[in-house]
Amino acid sequence: MATPDQLDRERVVVADLRDAWPVLDLEARVEGFRWLTSAEAEEFFLELSTFDRTRILLGLPPNEQRWWLRALPPDDLADVIQETPPDARPKLFALLDEPALKEINALLAYSEDDAGGLMNPRYARLRADMSADEAISYLRRQTRERVESIYYAYVLDPEQRLVGVVSFRQLMMARGHARVRDLMQTDLVRVSEEMDQEAVSRVFAQHDLLAIPVVDADGRMKGIVTADDIVDVVREEATEDIQKIGGTAALDAPYLQVGMGEMLRKRAGWLTLLFVGEMFTASAMGAFEDEIARAAVLSAFIPLIISSGGNCGSQASTLVIRAIALGELRLRDWGRVLLRELASGAALGGLLGSLGFFRIWAWQIFFHHPKAELLPQYQNTGYYGQHWFLLAVTVSVSVLGVALWGTLSGALLPFLLRLARLDPATASAPLVATMVDITGLVIYFSVASALLAGTLL
Amino acid sequence: MATPDQLDRERVVVADLRDAWPVLDLEARVEGFRWLTSAEAEEFFLELSTFDRTRILLGLPPNEQRWWLRALPPDDLADVIQETPPDARPKLFALLDEPALKEINALLAYSEDDAGGLMNPRYARLRADMSADEAISYLRRQTRERVESIYYAYVLDPEQRLVGVVSFRQLMMARGHARVRDLMQTDLVRVSEEMDQEAVSRVFAQHDLLAIPVVDADGRMKGIVTADDIVDVVREEATEDIQKIGGTAALDAPYLQVGMGEMLRKRAGWLTLLFVGEMFTASAMGAFEDEIARAAVLSAFIPLIISSGGNCGSQASTLVIRAIALGELRLRDWGRVLLRELASGAALGGLLGSLGFFRIWAWQIFFHHPKAELLPQYQNTGYYGQHWFLLAVTVSVSVLGVALWGTLSGALLPFLLRLARLDPATASAPLVATMVDITGLVIYFSVASALLAGTLL
Repeated sequence: MATPDQLDRERVVVADLRDAWPVLDLEARVEGFRWLTSAEAEEFFLELSTFDRTRILLGLPPNEQRWWLRALPPDDLADVIQETPPDARPKLFALLDEPALKEINALLAYSEDDAGGLMNPRYARLRADMSADEAISYLRRQTRERVESIYYAYVLDPEQRLVGVVSFRQLMMARGHARVRDLMQTDLVRVSEEMDQEAVSRVFAQHDLLAIPVVDADGRMKGIVTADDIVDVVREEATEDIQKIGGTAALDAPYLQVGMGEMLRKRAGWLTLLFVGEMFTASAMGAFEDEIARAAVLSAFIPLIISSGGNCGSQASTLVIRAIALGELRLRDWGRVLLRELASGAALGGLLGSLGFFRIWAWQIFFHHPKAELLPQYQNTGYYGQHWFLLAVTVSVSVLGVALWGTLSGALLPFLLRLARLDPATASAPLVATMVDITGLVIYFSVASALLAGTLL
Repeated sequence: MATPDQLDRERVVVADLRDAWPVLDLEARVEGFRWLTSAEAEEFFLELSTFDRTRILLGLPPNEQRWWLRALPPDDLADVIQETPPDARPKLFALLDEPALKEINALLAYSEDDAGGLMNPRYARLRADMSADEAISYLRRQTRERVESIYYAYVLDPEQRLVGVVSFRQLMMARGHARVRDLMQTDLVRVSEEMDQEAVSRVFAQHDLLAIPVVDADGRMKGIVTADDIVDVVREEATEDIQKIGGTAALDAPYLQVGMGEMLRKRAGWLTLLFVGEMFTASAMGAFEDEIARAAVLSAFIPLIISSGGNCGSQASTLVIRAIALGELRLRDWGRVLLRELASGAALGGLLGSLGFFRIWAWQIFFHHPKAELLPQYQNTGYYGQHWFLLAVTVSVSVLGVALWGTLSGALLPFLLRLARLDPATASAPLVATMVDITGLVIYFSVASALLAGTLL
């Protein structure tokens, strides 16, 4: 007969835990996880992100930790160790045996974001002088040692240099006595161990492969990167870029799992910087206070004009940031982008400028000024008074100038950041908008001074 | 002896064409492509995006088109046909033989963005009552028919329902007479043919698999989706989201390959809408013209205040948009997000508001008003005159209010869009900023009226 405790346990199936996961705290997660049968737990553990895996693992007693450390493939294990706070790492190392320790230390030497940090050092290997039959039975032996992928087998020379690749399909289609040397493809895609993971993902996207070999500077095979890991990389890199474009530091963890303190730190930095930058608008406006006091109507179009610059800049910068990340644009393409965006900015600025003109014209014709009865200069002269035409021209020329400036700044800033070896995605929509706001005010009041001197000003 | 023409040809190797590709027009691309040897051309063609493949294909004479149509795997061929303008499709269909036509028509019935539109209908299949040896030799026969992946073999019952999966590795490790039934895993991840590709990519990210089977409503196996295709999907979906967040319609093609006319159409729509929305700020400002005429100093802080709201909103909306896209947040989580963002908005608004206060205080102490000699009210009373403290409080309270409002709007708008079955990424940084600008002005002038009545106003 089942005890109440067993009944309780049986109700906790993997699906329930998976559903409840986002709302459970760490303690409840560890507890729920330990209630799973070992088969359920293994399936569940392998589904978790590195972030969650590490936290669960650190919450388990040492004997269970040892079990999980052994169950993980070496590349995943290296990720977990990199996610572990440095002071907790020695305890985990103590649980590993000598060969595992050696393998992990080799992987930990790579940066987490490099091909070396992504790769699995266990892959299927062959020699060029084997026959297809020998190769198949040799691979059959290797599969017992937890080789991650046997979709491709890599052909190495005696110095461990990669000389070719043969797909399992090719081996099986071949006659038994055919030589691997004659079956293998020698013109093969490979990446170096230091290649950045974003560049690795571009290689995958370009060649549509399920696995790519990683070699060192001497052409020696170090491991393979598989497409399933790249799916995660592409998601993470896009998440980082999107968060940066929105004006936040990358969160590096799921939204609901970032503590409030850390969330605020990641957001406050940029917000403060942008706020301090935007303070210059208060100084710029101070310099134009005289003009505003004389023609308060000018202030009415400030938000419209500066936001046009910000919107144009946001469009241009996100298009360029993404094209650089996808490898569609390289540093040397800046001139072509400049020409395209010059044309785009002029066309879009012209469109918005015309809309601005018609807005003022329409109000002038169809409305009276709300304070017309109090302000003598607005009586019987339409919404914007007798100088409405000059005002409309001022606004539309300013919109054109600001849109053009915003478009060009937004398009070129990512290139400048790249040139300075910074992340182009740092050219966030709010940063571009802030930069354009100050210039926008200067453009607006310069145009106004030039066109309205002697009339409104 | 080589003719000049041959020498010319030999200089055009794949690498050169690949390098020159971005700057070549369509005609030059087709010409360069036709200069490649058939092996080079095949490698090169398979590297191209669907977009480029289709354009090259449509530029070739019919006999070469027929060759390439046969060389493409069915899922890629379906993509090319979907990319072809409808009026050019019948010519391509005429080049296909009966079985290929049937296969393609089945795939074309799916939306391009569904699991069905991504899948390859050729996969390795087994029956549960085969022995491992029989299975291996059966797979060996199937590999001759261009089966895309033999990393996993799928076990079907006589009604073609998917009952299990066995990896090649498991088959090879098993004894020859073991039954597939006893080797296969029956608790397997599968997706339905209508599942959206973004959801399919989440399943891949969660389970780290190289291939996932696609089944219909009755559990019948229709095909497989492989991780290399998902790498492309994740990149495309992220590109669309980033472009939308930047305030552009998704380009659907590489930046440099979008014609100027189309580029302008994709950007002008949102810009116009945002500009028209932002026009309300001109009306709102018109209503406060009286206050500005009396205290022009108020206008100096307008850009600072409204941009704070926009920046906070941009942060919150991009964080929430990405978390929804990654499946970290679901519609029902809106309440938790509201609480978190209420706290974040208050904390960040408090921080920025304090900075604003200190800015005015510092200027008041350390600077004279630039027009102090002309304006009697600023003589010997610091930069902002005798009412500087009330002004500082007005600005900092407004910044707090606007930041809080911006954060909440930015965080909740993506949920509202999702509820309305629209793309949450439509809550672009510029859209949120525009929405917040108008409210920001109303908050600012309301606070000013309340605090400054009788002094500055």
